[in-house]
Amino acid sequence: MRANPHFQKLPAGYLFPEIGRRVRAYAAAHPEAKVIRLGIGDVTEPLAPAIIGAMHAAVDEMAARETFKGYGPEQGYDFLVEAIREHDYTRRGIEVAADEIFVSDGSKCDSGNLQELFAADAVIAVTDPVYPVYVDSNVMAGRTGAPGADGRFPGLVYLPATAANGFCPPPPETTDARGVDVVYLCSPNNPTGAVMTREQLTAWVAWAKQHDALIVFDAAYEAYIQDDALPRSIFEIPGAREVAVEMRSFSKRAGFTGVRCGFLVVPKDLRATGAGGERVSLNAMWSRRHTTKFNGASYVVQRGAAAVYTPDGLAQTGAQIAFYMENARILREGLARAGFTVYGGQHAPYIWLETPKGTTSWQFFDGLLDKAHLVGTPGSGFGPQGEGYFRLSAFNSRANVDEAVARIAKVFA
Amino acid sequence: MRANPHFQKLPAGYLFPEIGRRVRAYAAAHPEAKVIRLGIGDVTEPLAPAIIGAMHAAVDEMAARETFKGYGPEQGYDFLVEAIREHDYTRRGIEVAADEIFVSDGSKCDSGNLQELFAADAVIAVTDPVYPVYVDSNVMAGRTGAPGADGRFPGLVYLPATAANGFCPPPPETTDARGVDVVYLCSPNNPTGAVMTREQLTAWVAWAKQHDALIVFDAAYEAYIQDDALPRSIFEIPGAREVAVEMRSFSKRAGFTGVRCGFLVVPKDLRATGAGGERVSLNAMWSRRHTTKFNGASYVVQRGAAAVYTPDGLAQTGAQIAFYMENARILREGLARAGFTVYGGQHAPYIWLETPKGTTSWQFFDGLLDKAHLVGTPGSGFGPQGEGYFRLSAFNSRANVDEAVARIAKVFA
Repeated sequence: MRANPHFQKLPAGYLFPEIGRRVRAYAAAHPEAKVIRLGIGDVTEPLAPAIIGAMHAAVDEMAARETFKGYGPEQGYDFLVEAIREHDYTRRGIEVAADEIFVSDGSKCDSGNLQELFAADAVIAVTDPVYPVYVDSNVMAGRTGAPGADGRFPGLVYLPATAANGFCPPPPETTDARGVDVVYLCSPNNPTGAVMTREQLTAWVAWAKQHDALIVFDAAYEAYIQDDALPRSIFEIPGAREVAVEMRSFSKRAGFTGVRCGFLVVPKDLRATGAGGERVSLNAMWSRRHTTKFNGASYVVQRGAAAVYTPDGLAQTGAQIAFYMENARILREGLARAGFTVYGGQHAPYIWLETPKGTTSWQFFDGLLDKAHLVGTPGSGFGPQGEGYFRLSAFNSRANVDEAVARIAKVFA
Repeated sequence: MRANPHFQKLPAGYLFPEIGRRVRAYAAAHPEAKVIRLGIGDVTEPLAPAIIGAMHAAVDEMAARETFKGYGPEQGYDFLVEAIREHDYTRRGIEVAADEIFVSDGSKCDSGNLQELFAADAVIAVTDPVYPVYVDSNVMAGRTGAPGADGRFPGLVYLPATAANGFCPPPPETTDARGVDVVYLCSPNNPTGAVMTREQLTAWVAWAKQHDALIVFDAAYEAYIQDDALPRSIFEIPGAREVAVEMRSFSKRAGFTGVRCGFLVVPKDLRATGAGGERVSLNAMWSRRHTTKFNGASYVVQRGAAAVYTPDGLAQTGAQIAFYMENARILREGLARAGFTVYGGQHAPYIWLETPKGTTSWQFFDGLLDKAHLVGTPGSGFGPQGEGYFRLSAFNSRANVDEAVARIAKVFA
């Protein structure tokens, strides 16, 4: 069989498995070390009682013939779609129809699958640093060349996210745009923790309209926004329905990293250009993709996700987010006291810190693991511009966060 | 944005949504009709008590910080992978390693995603009739032209599955092979209910070796095989590890159509040809695809799937399968008594019947719905060679199956 040749362009390992490998090797060689993991952005608090109750009830439904659920609608059950629509959109004055919401088993899958709607030669723009799935899924689909010595893939348009632009790069100038078809934007941002303002997002929507480009807006961390003036949805921006899709996830909002549920909003106003220049509906295309290659998220999981929107669910998951954000504050302030320049952590569960001068991201990773027994994520794992930075996650127990800050204070005193 | 042009080659609706639409329209116009659904192959028995217990226990684990599970291994938890390996393979004398098993959220997803490993111009062979996902996912990826008047997609190699060959077409002759890269084989077959013998499968493995082709073996219905002499896994055939991947599902085996779990076996012996003629490992490629675009099946679901392999789980799910197979016997015999020529239903939950002379599959569908208030699946929905056939599923209550047979006897008397 002739294989897809583009997989060979990807470097050896996905970032997190590589981190796992190094941590396991270190732990095996130093069994006495109490390693604290602030690397992979994985939640640590248990599921909220409202969610647990709903999942038990759903399991019981599956035990009786009268209430058993087989194949559900691929797009998600009405009870969940309507809860999403009402709470996340209608109540905020945002127009989203039920058949524009596609429930999935998580945003990683949606991120990876969405590129199937793009032409094979579509030009993709990403921020740098960036969540690796946006890049890797387009590399696998053949939209890039093999990476250069700088780690960049020819054919991708990179938008440097730097301290100078607050890690929120503006739209590329017309002359630089190279006919960009798609841009991936993540706000609040993974990995930098930066959040886009209404003005910044408005500029992107205007740019996308002008250039007939698609914005893939990843709002997986919207629940961490602390300031109501900041946009939680790109559809708060007038005109965004014509140029954007939006990804949301229950992973970080409600502790679903091991439960698996997210959703993608694809407005029916959104059009792309077909082979003959005709305008095609991305909603219809995604619906076709979703019904052909996916069979719906687990019923028990969807019942759990719907419980997030109950009064108890909202209160309980809100308290978890407040807990993680207090962790973020403790980390931020502890790092700053230890002399680090830190970003993020105010509307996102990630702290983005500058590594000491002359220390690469991976060197800092190895040093922090060895000296402080702390695991973080090397910034260079998110792209060349992430070199010289390091991500710490606020997902952990308070005791571990306090201990991490104490170790940092000691090691970097 | 320039869109993937190949989606436009697909006809309007995926088969089952179209059936749903017609049934809803009929039910709305005839609210008094008691419609019995034997169309979509969806289970009706509730989950077995062993599975229910395991899922409740898993939900409880998610409620406590000490036992909470966040991101799991993308490939599946060891407890499930080892249960699969031991029960489905090792105990049957089949060599499969743990890192050759990839747990997923179901075979529909695996069927749709697997083609990402193939070259863009790989030549795909399918039986006709066939499970639509094999075809549609390759159409979307641009491996075909637009369909002709006969519904066939230029570029695909169709292998007619007819009464004459027992609905198990042999490998194409060398001169007809057109350099086939991949063939999809499903046994026990959806939709025909046919099952391949050891000799037939051995011939396919030999052909694949000779032509350096990949066999995608879909064994989603293996639990319905009643004769131990028939192969349940392609890896029972010597040499298959070098030419085949195998899909398995808990959907029909344990009632997981709404729970969502399956797995794909990709042997490490399997090689394909890269762009430069080098040999590449499909196991490594699938591992990369799985870790990059998927985040593991839900923990609660994986615990439920593992319970299928406990003594209670095996006994309880075995009893369900026996129940459905008794339904199949009742349907088969009732249809035969009513004068129909019937196939399948002996090692599969599907009956494949010939529609009366001069009646198309969709005409028979509409007539059966109107006269007997029974829903089946038109054979032509599975491919041009399915015209003149009709699929009935054995998934229903005994009362409904008895009633269906009584209505058929009356209508076709």
